[in-house]
Amino acid sequence: MNDIDIVMQNAANAFKKYALLTPAAKAGFLNEIAVQIENDRASLVKVANEESNLPLPRLNGELTRTTNQLKLFANLIKEGSWVEAAIDLADVQRTPPKPDTRKMLLPVGPVVVFGASNFPFAFSTAGGDTASALASGSTVVVKGHSAHAETSGKMFDAIKKAIVISGVPEYTVQHVLGSGSTVGKALVQHAETTGVGFTGSLSGGMALWKLANERERPIPVFAEMSSINPVVFLPDTLEKNAETLAKTYAASITLGMGQFCTNPGLLLAVKSKGLDDFLSLLGKEIAAVIPQKMLHKAIQESFARGLNEALAQKGIQKIGQSVQQPGEGEAYPTVASVSGKDFLQNPHLREEVFGPYSLAIICDSKAQLIEALTALKGQLTTTIMATDDDITAHGDIIHLQQTLAGRIILNDVPTGVEVCASMVHGGPFPATTDARYTSVGTTAIKRWVRPICFQGFKDDMLPDALKDNNPLNIWRIVNGEWKKNNI
Amino acid sequence: MNDIDIVMQNAANAFKKYALLTPAAKAGFLNEIAVQIENDRASLVKVANEESNLPLPRLNGELTRTTNQLKLFANLIKEGSWVEAAIDLADVQRTPPKPDTRKMLLPVGPVVVFGASNFPFAFSTAGGDTASALASGSTVVVKGHSAHAETSGKMFDAIKKAIVISGVPEYTVQHVLGSGSTVGKALVQHAETTGVGFTGSLSGGMALWKLANERERPIPVFAEMSSINPVVFLPDTLEKNAETLAKTYAASITLGMGQFCTNPGLLLAVKSKGLDDFLSLLGKEIAAVIPQKMLHKAIQESFARGLNEALAQKGIQKIGQSVQQPGEGEAYPTVASVSGKDFLQNPHLREEVFGPYSLAIICDSKAQLIEALTALKGQLTTTIMATDDDITAHGDIIHLQQTLAGRIILNDVPTGVEVCASMVHGGPFPATTDARYTSVGTTAIKRWVRPICFQGFKDDMLPDALKDNNPLNIWRIVNGEWKKNNI
Repeated sequence: MNDIDIVMQNAANAFKKYALLTPAAKAGFLNEIAVQIENDRASLVKVANEESNLPLPRLNGELTRTTNQLKLFANLIKEGSWVEAAIDLADVQRTPPKPDTRKMLLPVGPVVVFGASNFPFAFSTAGGDTASALASGSTVVVKGHSAHAETSGKMFDAIKKAIVISGVPEYTVQHVLGSGSTVGKALVQHAETTGVGFTGSLSGGMALWKLANERERPIPVFAEMSSINPVVFLPDTLEKNAETLAKTYAASITLGMGQFCTNPGLLLAVKSKGLDDFLSLLGKEIAAVIPQKMLHKAIQESFARGLNEALAQKGIQKIGQSVQQPGEGEAYPTVASVSGKDFLQNPHLREEVFGPYSLAIICDSKAQLIEALTALKGQLTTTIMATDDDITAHGDIIHLQQTLAGRIILNDVPTGVEVCASMVHGGPFPATTDARYTSVGTTAIKRWVRPICFQGFKDDMLPDALKDNNPLNIWRIVNGEWKKNNI
Repeated sequence: MNDIDIVMQNAANAFKKYALLTPAAKAGFLNEIAVQIENDRASLVKVANEESNLPLPRLNGELTRTTNQLKLFANLIKEGSWVEAAIDLADVQRTPPKPDTRKMLLPVGPVVVFGASNFPFAFSTAGGDTASALASGSTVVVKGHSAHAETSGKMFDAIKKAIVISGVPEYTVQHVLGSGSTVGKALVQHAETTGVGFTGSLSGGMALWKLANERERPIPVFAEMSSINPVVFLPDTLEKNAETLAKTYAASITLGMGQFCTNPGLLLAVKSKGLDDFLSLLGKEIAAVIPQKMLHKAIQESFARGLNEALAQKGIQKIGQSVQQPGEGEAYPTVASVSGKDFLQNPHLREEVFGPYSLAIICDSKAQLIEALTALKGQLTTTIMATDDDITAHGDIIHLQQTLAGRIILNDVPTGVEVCASMVHGGPFPATTDARYTSVGTTAIKRWVRPICFQGFKDDMLPDALKDNNPLNIWRIVNGEWKKNNI
């Protein structure tokens, strides 16, 4: 057996025991990981800062988000209703007799989680994918991101302490490092792997997805890959709020040097005096943004290349760029504009440029704006900036935007993804490989499970969630009705 | 535009209107389809009998199942809680302020449904795929099965009447005929198609799945393809109930000439006097089964070929076969046995032979039985026949079986699939392309939707399911708690 074989076999053996632990035991483990991370906060944030160039306040906030996420999933499984228990009781009088059937969601097996470079805590080693998978009852193998390998190792140390203290199986979580094209590939191809979580580039996500589909037994890959998060600015709000909009969007475009999946990369509007004012103010705001170091060298090089390519396209006009030249490894905050006509003729302009860059599409008419929206591929988010009068006049645009993305936002910025039951951080291809799931929020747990129906089982053979006396006190659909009581 | 272009464009245009109808209007349409089918029952059953060779009582039962299914989905959407509404209210006091986010499941677009030859009513033109897709708000293009083209056309006539009476858009459901490799392929590849439902062969399902994954924008294919539905017979029940078991299983193996996805194709047990008695009695029961015509020529030829191949494998012993030679187009009911050792050495014996054939695996030991179960691919069902003493002694086997299939059955036959909330007609690959979904029961609706999050929306802009005053009176998760009241 090679190393990956050993790791995946350990994960499979640990799964047999871990999956059977009570929800309370799994919740205790998740909470203990949060405690151990919190205990090592200062050191974790310091190392992550050195590895990722992300500022300390951001990293402190992200670490809090990460431990909150673990606690959220602990609470979710302690409450327990997420398993979608459904019970249909037998009816022996019926012809033919109706059997007793009971269904719930159960974990499938070991999950492989790829760390994301842009979130060294929240989407990496002990991030949302790992937390949701552990909550479901899966065991996890983390492929740490090479750009923050030490941070990843330290996070795993915290998890290891929690494993010992909680008494869950030793190999409930494992950590490996190495290249995506060798170690990553071997993990996705391994027979014991049952699912994959990934946040990163379109090329990286698609490579994993293809590997998973070429397996003898295909497995789901939940890859969050690419989004330019179009924002529509309607005329009345542009006329009335140009200055506020410019400040708000300059901040959103350059937040964390634009290194968010939800960065607003495309601003769409119909030409007007208000739009002119907004773009002029936005250009000035962007000019005042100081270049900062990006996450790592490859991302900075990719951004510089993408920016140059984008600015070289036909009809592109620079409308604002940092007055300070970027130093080594730094991004060059930039906003440009293009006519609706040129945008529609150039599919290249619909591709993501990951970093602090945004392109404003100046449309001739509302019809052209609708055409531009329709030409877009699937997105994580789409936003509408509008007054009440705008909303009344342009309901058709708002409705169209619902077909584009997993989240549609009114009068706010897309950056910032709340971790809660109602969040959808997902969307139609190529934003993700599977628009039916989210990678943020409690329903992220649904990625790692499948429904199983037990027919004619005796009560003491059933999982607790399906027993007559409802020992977990969860919501269940009993004979078609939502109930929390005994049967 | 070619014909398929026109059909799919019609479906996409109809979707824009149909998806916006109230749940009550969609439910009315589903119920009206049921009424129209019922009105034409005698004629439908007659034509289906001529085309499929299935007997009249079976077809009458299947038609009732089909109309019940339509009514079940009508009730599901009238009740409304299936949309998984989740609401997290804003908290402006928090730093940073928490936005108002609200999520629900919404339909994606036109769905293509392939009729299944073995269920001319329940899994075809107005069957479960169509009913669940229409309930979700999707429009549907049915590719009727050539083996029952007239039945399919007549079913579509009933749907057309319901379209007119209910006043839903004309192209809410459309019907096409033609070969899978041309018409079917074009439907799956069309840019407006957003999902595919299929029940049939492994090769057919995999071909559609590959086409869907090769699209510029991949779409989900829910293909239910292949299952041999292993049944484990434990020693105590074999010793005590050999005669009953033989009668029960001879009936299940030959029900509908074995043309069910859930036909028990594999019988596993450890060698014993009880097993000898059971197999001897089973052989006698099978010998008494009269050959019947199969669904169509290609299926009969495929069964004859598969049976000959299976019986020619090393170590196979025939233990029972109909005493009556089959006539033209008829199946030859057969049961054979093989040692656990020969079974483990021959992967060919794990493949489905679609028809009235079952293979008994005679294992040397419990360890070998577990090895045989472990060697199996994913299944729709797996069954355990056991006394209470067996259950106490062999919990490990029962637990192992949960990893194999979508439904695990105790002391019953796998044939017979109840249409209800707790049913799972699905399972790990290659039983289906996606173990996370079922094609039978109310949750089949989840195949045609994706979650959308509305952030910061005003109440009157939200879908009814997410409005403050809960006008649909549905169950929702509000700030993490299940509630049915207003906000």
